[in-house]
Amino acid sequence: MPFLKLDLHNHILPETWPDLKKRYGYGGFIQLDHASCATPGKANMMKDGQLFRVVEENCWGARARIRDMDDTSVTVQALSTVPVMFSYWAKPDHTLDLSRILNDDIAKTVKQHPRRFVGLGTIPAQAPELSVEELKRLKADLHFPGIQIGSHINEWNLDAKELYPVWKTCEDLGMSVFVHPWDMQMGGRYSKYWLPWLVGMPAETATAICCMLMGNIFEQFPRLKVCFAHGGGSFPYTVGRIQHGYNVRPDLCATECSVPPRSYLGKFWCDSLVHDAEALKLLLQVIGEQRIILGSDYPFPLGEHHPGKLIETMDLPDSLKKQLLFDNALEFLNLEATQFA
Amino acid sequence: MPFLKLDLHNHILPETWPDLKKRYGYGGFIQLDHASCATPGKANMMKDGQLFRVVEENCWGARARIRDMDDTSVTVQALSTVPVMFSYWAKPDHTLDLSRILNDDIAKTVKQHPRRFVGLGTIPAQAPELSVEELKRLKADLHFPGIQIGSHINEWNLDAKELYPVWKTCEDLGMSVFVHPWDMQMGGRYSKYWLPWLVGMPAETATAICCMLMGNIFEQFPRLKVCFAHGGGSFPYTVGRIQHGYNVRPDLCATECSVPPRSYLGKFWCDSLVHDAEALKLLLQVIGEQRIILGSDYPFPLGEHHPGKLIETMDLPDSLKKQLLFDNALEFLNLEATQFA
Repeated sequence: MPFLKLDLHNHILPETWPDLKKRYGYGGFIQLDHASCATPGKANMMKDGQLFRVVEENCWGARARIRDMDDTSVTVQALSTVPVMFSYWAKPDHTLDLSRILNDDIAKTVKQHPRRFVGLGTIPAQAPELSVEELKRLKADLHFPGIQIGSHINEWNLDAKELYPVWKTCEDLGMSVFVHPWDMQMGGRYSKYWLPWLVGMPAETATAICCMLMGNIFEQFPRLKVCFAHGGGSFPYTVGRIQHGYNVRPDLCATECSVPPRSYLGKFWCDSLVHDAEALKLLLQVIGEQRIILGSDYPFPLGEHHPGKLIETMDLPDSLKKQLLFDNALEFLNLEATQFA
Repeated sequence: MPFLKLDLHNHILPETWPDLKKRYGYGGFIQLDHASCATPGKANMMKDGQLFRVVEENCWGARARIRDMDDTSVTVQALSTVPVMFSYWAKPDHTLDLSRILNDDIAKTVKQHPRRFVGLGTIPAQAPELSVEELKRLKADLHFPGIQIGSHINEWNLDAKELYPVWKTCEDLGMSVFVHPWDMQMGGRYSKYWLPWLVGMPAETATAICCMLMGNIFEQFPRLKVCFAHGGGSFPYTVGRIQHGYNVRPDLCATECSVPPRSYLGKFWCDSLVHDAEALKLLLQVIGEQRIILGSDYPFPLGEHHPGKLIETMDLPDSLKKQLLFDNALEFLNLEATQFA
């Protein structure tokens, strides 16, 4: 019998949304342009009239997604927006407005297919008080089990005191947090070989983990559930260096906390997206077998094209595969399997 | 019988050197100030009158180093300068002059203790023609088996065409290259928790590896021997992501090369400095048992304080420990064990 699979890490866009430059009065936002793309079933993500990325119907259409999910035996997707849509740089009211557009669209898809999708919302994280408002709406009105948040918020890392009300509200509402890298250093030395994605993203995620650990976030918000994308970025392989750094330079590393980084292993989650069996073994060993959750980055090319295939084809006990592919996600999101039956 | 140990990764400074601001007419250089440090046996590394780092006698004194080496059973150190001394940002003639001062000082120490030390030189890498000159002197006059180079040279990554004469000369002279991260992003979001060292350095090294692989350097200079610091930074854990990126976006990743990144595994070296047994196992598996070399970052606190202890205490065959602690370094540096007997 095949395993049930919940894919925690995948991205969706609305099929259309208002012209944001017109709506807010300034540029920098992403639009989805179906007309300018010559290929049927494809659309151009445009930023200020420049092509940002070509996407296909499975990026916005539930039917195309379900077809792919059926082909790869994915039971459930936890839908989140594409990180470039975070728009934390915009005016707070506008990011709140855009977040609502994106969240409402995800909610519509979830409502149409409640056994195939759950929603992870996006918030105007640069404005914590507005974020708290939207978090309450996500919980009460849209019934989302969690949110996706960027690995940093403009100049704040995730240890910023300004974000405490966000973490407190997530804790109080039982909203889980999926941390996704974004806004990597681009251009210059990073303009070749896809370096912002291949090296920058893993570094962003390790930065986010270090800041949440050494920033004492898990100590202050002990019920907060956090999952980091891409197998924790570079963190699981460099945890020895990080712990050693904490040991030898507490004046630099233990300024906000008194708990060594390794103490938190087993406390937070990572997705499984590492594209390599040896790396996945290390990930399981370092972060914990109960703390790794299937994540594919669907429908993007850098993701695992057959979600869960690495786990399914590895020499692991079936009971562990079941956890990694489904059960750990349910625990992270505070969900019951029955809602997908 | 204890193993012989050659520590490839450690740093040394001259006890004194000229006032470089006076000598070159502008600031930005590091000076070692013995007088301003109240503690005997310690000295302040100063940059433009500001304290950069406090170091101890084992950073400049051969006798103190040998005492520590004897205490931890290190047979040989391959001495290299402290990366902050690279000074690639300075005027080329001045970097050449400073490189000669540093290289001559290492040569003096090696000459005094030829069974305990070998030298890795530094070059004015921003000026490849001057670097070629210094490489020839390092080989012919100072008998160094290799050099240490930064993970990037100002705005160049290590794939820059400007550096081809350096690689060609290293190849022709049989000079091995140890790549060390430096010049990480500092300040702003990276000003806390030692992030430039704990997250930035591993990313720098992964960037250097990606650029040498996808920049086709190993294809063009097949006899070039390169070793990367700190267990290859974040590369060994993210190689699956990097290879997958190469597969799905050759338009971004295969612009300069036609050989997939994984094909070069086993071709280049990494040091062993990962501070974690599981990480070292992954490193051995990914990079190859014949390609990992003891490196401690002595005498700095982020290093392995008892060089080789992780390897020595792991459950590995003695034959493998012998390779990791000594033999692989000899192969990398084109040296014979007899010269240390």
